[in-house]
Amino acid sequence: MGLIGFGTVGSGVVRVLQKNSALIERKTGVKLVLKKVVDRNIEKKRVVSVERGKLSANVDDILNDPEIGIVIELIGGYSPAKEFIIRALRNGKHVVTANKALLARHKKEIFAEAEKAGKKVFFEASVAGGIPIILSLTRGLTANNIESIEGILNGTCNFILTKMGNEGLEYVEALKRAQELGFAEADPALDVGGFDAMHKLVLLSSLAFGRNFEEKDVEVKGISSITKEQIDEAKKEGKKIKLIAEARNAGGKMSLKVAPKKIPLSHYLANVDNEVNAVLVKGDFSGEVLFVGKGAGMDATASAVVADVIEAAKLIAGERRGKEFNWGE
Amino acid sequence: MGLIGFGTVGSGVVRVLQKNSALIERKTGVKLVLKKVVDRNIEKKRVVSVERGKLSANVDDILNDPEIGIVIELIGGYSPAKEFIIRALRNGKHVVTANKALLARHKKEIFAEAEKAGKKVFFEASVAGGIPIILSLTRGLTANNIESIEGILNGTCNFILTKMGNEGLEYVEALKRAQELGFAEADPALDVGGFDAMHKLVLLSSLAFGRNFEEKDVEVKGISSITKEQIDEAKKEGKKIKLIAEARNAGGKMSLKVAPKKIPLSHYLANVDNEVNAVLVKGDFSGEVLFVGKGAGMDATASAVVADVIEAAKLIAGERRGKEFNWGE
Repeated sequence: MGLIGFGTVGSGVVRVLQKNSALIERKTGVKLVLKKVVDRNIEKKRVVSVERGKLSANVDDILNDPEIGIVIELIGGYSPAKEFIIRALRNGKHVVTANKALLARHKKEIFAEAEKAGKKVFFEASVAGGIPIILSLTRGLTANNIESIEGILNGTCNFILTKMGNEGLEYVEALKRAQELGFAEADPALDVGGFDAMHKLVLLSSLAFGRNFEEKDVEVKGISSITKEQIDEAKKEGKKIKLIAEARNAGGKMSLKVAPKKIPLSHYLANVDNEVNAVLVKGDFSGEVLFVGKGAGMDATASAVVADVIEAAKLIAGERRGKEFNWGE
Repeated sequence: MGLIGFGTVGSGVVRVLQKNSALIERKTGVKLVLKKVVDRNIEKKRVVSVERGKLSANVDDILNDPEIGIVIELIGGYSPAKEFIIRALRNGKHVVTANKALLARHKKEIFAEAEKAGKKVFFEASVAGGIPIILSLTRGLTANNIESIEGILNGTCNFILTKMGNEGLEYVEALKRAQELGFAEADPALDVGGFDAMHKLVLLSSLAFGRNFEEKDVEVKGISSITKEQIDEAKKEGKKIKLIAEARNAGGKMSLKVAPKKIPLSHYLANVDNEVNAVLVKGDFSGEVLFVGKGAGMDATASAVVADVIEAAKLIAGERRGKEFNWGE
């Protein structure tokens, strides 16, 4: 493996590998070796340490290394992340990424490159952190005609709305609290504007419905105009305001939307509070299936990245039939 | 495919195939063809109809047919289900089963046969119906050292306890209600004694911890001695009584247990009521991940069976890299 981007999630990935590699090998039969970590800044102190010889500021040390079969892209953004992913695929490497913004916009092009190269792009970490929702939609619920997906897909917004409801804070105060605790970026526009949730909804609904939804297909409204009064009013009605990302198939007519919504306390998503994420999928045979977990953060996102790395490694090893897992001794 | 066992779940499988085959082909690229359905009684009326020529009372029509690559075993019980599965594997077929009792007891032997044959045994439907929990443990959360699994894995028990709590019924009354509604068998011992949940816990914890747990490793207590008074007392403490199947890893020391337990209303599992199932997995990196959904019934179980059939079909087709799903047009 080569890891591009040694930030928060990248450090989490290194930590998973340092702590759980032996366990992973015992459970799945794959031995993961991190050969190179590339970042613009290789001097900065991180919460984990990597031996000096594995660090590089030159991405070619990963992209041009024939011994590296899996490239983990964790720099985010559109460029140069896209170019790195495409070069990795063309050089015969599988790619693991958490880059929802990039995939929401360029998934067709990137997956076409992957198909041409006979390689795969894994992206479990791009939606809802530690919750295996991509896996569940692409392998677990495939027998279903999906009727709807409803999700709390942005932890920052959920944290802000929860604080406004529980502690009577105004929006700006709650946002400040989120920033102090590290849940919100210095520039929170992507989160509070609903765009991050929109990127994730584009990916989930495309997979669930087997259609190529794009950003323009989603109606987006953020939470920055929500007032304490609206939240109090909802409370009086026995409801909570949540930023809900939803996709519905009404007899073939699709609607995709991200917006604040009053939901009754009896609804599955009403009790998903603070920075927690959740996805409620309704299939014509499965019925409602709910997934809840940490949607972001170093550890939960790293859990998803490494799960994908293991899948990629199994492909490289040639999936040994009947030995996908180990029943133990 | 050949389907052995045309009962409730078998009928559900036929219904999924009749309704969603075209959608499944579009989303996953695999075309599922049901060639033969075997049952001891092929005269009985079912909720779905299968053309006469596809029905047979002779299991050899499936096990000896070289055109059949996937055998779905839905007859349950230990024998002859085990013999059918082993013959199917030896004859070069993948197997999909919902048989938790059989796997809990004979998983090592059955998976050794599968490995020898170079074929796979899929069993998502054996635990928690429509919830993709086997998939999540074997592929989604593999990067984690699992600390605990807690589950509500038996819908009948959860229904009975919910009715006792909400409607003040005694155990025997609530059991009768469950039987009238078809949630409980005429002989409910396997459910209310905690043994069905135990079978499922044996499977989940073996996968999660990568150790070969057996039935004898689980301490089992059922719900039949729970009284209305105990439930009222729990309610006064702000708690609910649930039948919890749990496996914990305390520094390498494992404990596996199925028993009624008072849990606070703030706990994720407290609000999982009626016949609904749930599993709460705690990984060292993912944190707590909660899965909730229908744990049994014709449709939800069929959703899991057919998801497994699709995975088996992809193996047969040779998993075309980069085309595991379809982003749509």
